[in-house]
Amino acid sequence: MTSPFLGELLGTMTLIIFGNGVVAGALLAKSKGEAMGWVGITASWCFGTIAGIFVATATGSPDGHINPSVTVAAAIATGDLSKLGVYIPAQMIGAFIGAAIVWLHYLPHWAATEDKSLKLACFCTGPAIRDNKANLLSEIIATFVLILVIDAIVSKAVGAAGPFPTGIAPYIIGVIVWGIGLSLGGPTGYAINPARDLGPRIAHAVLPIAGKGGSDWDYAWIPVVGPVIGAAIAAVFVGMVGI
Amino acid sequence: MTSPFLGELLGTMTLIIFGNGVVAGALLAKSKGEAMGWVGITASWCFGTIAGIFVATATGSPDGHINPSVTVAAAIATGDLSKLGVYIPAQMIGAFIGAAIVWLHYLPHWAATEDKSLKLACFCTGPAIRDNKANLLSEIIATFVLILVIDAIVSKAVGAAGPFPTGIAPYIIGVIVWGIGLSLGGPTGYAINPARDLGPRIAHAVLPIAGKGGSDWDYAWIPVVGPVIGAAIAAVFVGMVGI
Amino acid sequence: MTSPFLGELLGTMTLIIFGNGVVAGALLAKSKGEAMGWVGITASWCFGTIAGIFVATATGSPDGHINPSVTVAAAIATGDLSKLGVYIPAQMIGAFIGAAIVWLHYLPHWAATEDKSLKLACFCTGPAIRDNKANLLSEIIATFVLILVIDAIVSKAVGAAGPFPTGIAPYIIGVIVWGIGLSLGGPTGYAINPARDLGPRIAHAVLPIAGKGGSDWDYAWIPVVGPVIGAAIAAVFVGMVGI
Amino acid sequence: MTSPFLGELLGTMTLIIFGNGVVAGALLAKSKGEAMGWVGITASWCFGTIAGIFVATATGSPDGHINPSVTVAAAIATGDLSKLGVYIPAQMIGAFIGAAIVWLHYLPHWAATEDKSLKLACFCTGPAIRDNKANLLSEIIATFVLILVIDAIVSKAVGAAGPFPTGIAPYIIGVIVWGIGLSLGGPTGYAINPARDLGPRIAHAVLPIAGKGGSDWDYAWIPVVGPVIGAAIAAVFVGMVGI
Repeated sequence: MTSPFLGELLGTMTLIIFGNGVVAGALLAKSKGEAMGWVGITASWCFGTIAGIFVATATGSPDGHINPSVTVAAAIATGDLSKLGVYIPAQMIGAFIGAAIVWLHYLPHWAATEDKSLKLACFCTGPAIRDNKANLLSEIIATFVLILVIDAIVSKAVGAAGPFPTGIAPYIIGVIVWGIGLSLGGPTGYAINPARDLGPRIAHAVLPIAGKGGSDWDYAWIPVVGPVIGAAIAAVFVGMVGI
Repeated sequence: MTSPFLGELLGTMTLIIFGNGVVAGALLAKSKGEAMGWVGITASWCFGTIAGIFVATATGSPDGHINPSVTVAAAIATGDLSKLGVYIPAQMIGAFIGAAIVWLHYLPHWAATEDKSLKLACFCTGPAIRDNKANLLSEIIATFVLILVIDAIVSKAVGAAGPFPTGIAPYIIGVIVWGIGLSLGGPTGYAINPARDLGPRIAHAVLPIAGKGGSDWDYAWIPVVGPVIGAAIAAVFVGMVGI
Repeated sequence: MTSPFLGELLGTMTLIIFGNGVVAGALLAKSKGEAMGWVGITASWCFGTIAGIFVATATGSPDGHINPSVTVAAAIATGDLSKLGVYIPAQMIGAFIGAAIVWLHYLPHWAATEDKSLKLACFCTGPAIRDNKANLLSEIIATFVLILVIDAIVSKAVGAAGPFPTGIAPYIIGVIVWGIGLSLGGPTGYAINPARDLGPRIAHAVLPIAGKGGSDWDYAWIPVVGPVIGAAIAAVFVGMVGI
Repeated sequence: MTSPFLGELLGTMTLIIFGNGVVAGALLAKSKGEAMGWVGITASWCFGTIAGIFVATATGSPDGHINPSVTVAAAIATGDLSKLGVYIPAQMIGAFIGAAIVWLHYLPHWAATEDKSLKLACFCTGPAIRDNKANLLSEIIATFVLILVIDAIVSKAVGAAGPFPTGIAPYIIGVIVWGIGLSLGGPTGYAINPARDLGPRIAHAVLPIAGKGGSDWDYAWIPVVGPVIGAAIAAVFVGMVGI
């Protein structure tokens, strides 16, 4: 049953179970992880990245992208657009399912939490200071850095500069995502992945979450468009440099 | 003297020395680690997982399960039930011994700590919001994720997609356990391992802990049944997918 | 387009995006990472070191120094001074560009932050207790430790004591930088890298940062001179010992 | 100039620079790392362990023990006592020098800190609850765990169960030391290493530290005797089990 579609779906689902799960664990009332802080939140997005890449590649994706930004960058780099239509829907569906599982996992905690904005934050990102241009720029920059460093790591993994055990790459990439969260997550909460934001935002809109507020659709385009632009610029830049 | 029984016993003992030890270090009065927070607690369950797998495999277990959920999932996957009767008793006894060692290690701190529920938390898990159905569901989900990701990692370690150094697998699995704690530990404290909960709960009941309260036996079935159900579902799911 | 110059430039730029980024994330008002504390700050300097070395080596630097101290130590060790004139300007320019990118990334947060000294701290280091001799000594000691440990790691990576996967060295070196930050960062904020301090200090002076104060030029020589002295002593010491 | 004596000396010196450094960074007034908490302190003892093992083995120690407990356990396991007289003096001298370097590194911070017990804690361990029997037991247990897990890791690194890259062992051992600190450091501050405690305690006694108090010699025997007993028990146990 393994297939590229299933791999990207299950890998992205896994990423979101860890990622949205840790935000819920940190923000929802009475959670044992309440007030774990930014270090804990960003750490588990790292662990979810590692887990997600392993699950994706073990269940059929030859690439383990689990992020449309990475898929877009790869399409630009290779000129092969055929994966876009397979991977991106899979990633979106996987992210939606992952968000729904986190909702079930923390089921009694939604009613226990009063602040509607905290509940939304367990699904999707939002800006620290709302400013469309600046927020878009932050998502572009953070995603550019993500793609640049992934390409550098992978080039070392498969290149002549080894020996670099390629099986370690998911771990190293996860660690870099931890760093991006700590360093570049401050302004927007670092979507850097359109599926990570849009899939769970749809889940927030449609699931019967106790005492939920609005899904902040005004902001929803930024964590989709910003990462795609950042990935495209990075792909062109990496191609120019010749990594 | 090495044997599968001894390996699972000593490995699970090691896991619990680290795991219950860090909860004691974080919660007991006057401990130098008091108030280290959720990041520290979940980190050392990760380190205990790594240590436990190495100890288990070095002392005779060919598998290093140190968790009945993993043993159940493996039995379902392979159809070979013969290990259940060896591993699970060993894991339970090991967890009991580990909990007793932590009790000795923190000996003067039990009398110094007033809150009986904090002392119980140094042995076994309890729900953040008591709700049997929701708590059971949380243990099912967290254990499902554990088994899915372990199977994905191990399939990469032994499969054709390498080179993945198999000796690194315990470390990567430990890191995933850190993530499960951060992301999915909020509602129930993430038993995800029946031995981790029941063995130490029995230790709490029988050891002469200064000023202890009840052992919360009403809740005790959930961290046993939930992980077994989650592991079984994961084993079937992984088999269907064909990882 | 890859070249040693470009590699050192892009690698150091990457280091500073992570490094200055995490300080901004921890100190600037309304950042989601505000108050993440010293563990988070030092962690992301580790992740930036890993990312920077990978980017540097993937884009043309055969060495991945991203730090004039390391370049100076290597020049003393080998007697070959030819790289100094290529690497150090590249590192300085890369650090300047990295600091400018962090400024753009956190654009709305500069005006939101009142304390001018916090804004300066997002660019360059400053002493906890101002005392030129003691601060200089701290930078010498911390850089000596950095070079000693890097040389030990690299000697294992390429030496006969393996098998040590050389591709893992950037990760291990990054982890050591985390430790230097935690252990030796207290007195001066651990420049240990002249480019890391001087490049961003120039950026602070020339960029139109909202509500900025002075760039503390009186202190600027210490994080340049101290690391160079420390690196030189370490290179001579390592040569004497015969690592 | 490399030799087993020099290797153990420089390796232990490196361990203490990181280890005592992070305590100073966390406890001394005005340090930038002040109040980093137990997670940060235990993390950098991990990083110092990694750094120390690499430095020790790169400068002439074939073993990289940097801890008399490990040397004692190895002597019991092999029946070869010849290294005791070389390694242990080297470790003690290295620890003394490391403590002196940390004193210099934080030079202006000693006068700025009022609490004499915090200054002592930057050199050597002390009990959370003073109780000789219980404190001794804690040091025995924590060192037993250290030796058991190290032996398990090393047996996997060199044994048939690989491939485990032996060059990764220092990293894995360091991570285990992080866990021991988090989980078992609560009662005594986890010396688990006689040199780590006695060398710096002598340094505290003889160095002209601004406003220092007594060196708590009444307690000094416990972090020496406890770890030796724990290591001896572990060596016998590991031999019986047959790891």
